[in-house]
Amino acid sequence: DLGMKNKKINIKEKLIKINEYWSPKVIAEMNNYQFKLAKVKGEFIWHSHDSTDEVFIIIDGKMNIELRDETIKLSKGEMYVVPKGVEHKPYAEKECQIMLIEPKGVVNTGKIKNKYTSPNDIWI
Amino acid sequence: DLGMKNKKINIKEKLIKINEYWSPKVIAEMNNYQFKLAKVKGEFIWHSHDSTDEVFIIIDGKMNIELRDETIKLSKGEMYVVPKGVEHKPYAEKECQIMLIEPKGVVNTGKIKNKYTSPNDIWI
Repeated sequence: DLGMKNKKINIKEKLIKINEYWSPKVIAEMNNYQFKLAKVKGEFIWHSHDSTDEVFIIIDGKMNIELRDETIKLSKGEMYVVPKGVEHKPYAEKECQIMLIEPKGVVNTGKIKNKYTSPNDIWI
Repeated sequence: DLGMKNKKINIKEKLIKINEYWSPKVIAEMNNYQFKLAKVKGEFIWHSHDSTDEVFIIIDGKMNIELRDETIKLSKGEMYVVPKGVEHKPYAEKECQIMLIEPKGVVNTGKIKNKYTSPNDIWI
């Protein structure tokens, strides 16, 4: 979306436009990478991304990223890099607002396609 | 730095470790990209990055990114993508805390090497 480029982006104002959980929306592109915002609440599914690391930055609230051998507990102002290929399950007891950074085209549910799978490239 | 990977990162705690202006420090890697933090104050130099876009996210404070034909005024919670090859000059009247995202190896002063040029790959 060329109209969205070359403009400053206010993260909180963009978050107001998100009305559903677990459905990342694009706010910026850097080369072939995208910055996405999402609101999350409840339990997501176990999945992995075989071709890329994935960055979570907590904008507001708290969430957990469950790995097979530990749970990463994240709060506002914290970030975590899920390494390429590592199975993870995001979880938030209450609504949490996050930024995701990853290459364009990454599917939010990895190789799995189900009701949690979101369409890509939806800009807000 | 393998010891810094696979751990959650607290952005504010990392910022406490930065004692100089205009000297970005690495806090995370995603594929071949790095997340860097910096404190900035005063005027930087005109420069561009010919091979990549560069993302600025304002963690606290205010800064301007001067372009040749306009000035992008950024405050806490705002971000801006400087397009590849576009000349820009960062400026902050008061101390501003920022996150930079760009490929590993990008030189902070572009093609220019002077007293503002910071060493790369310094993790905090």
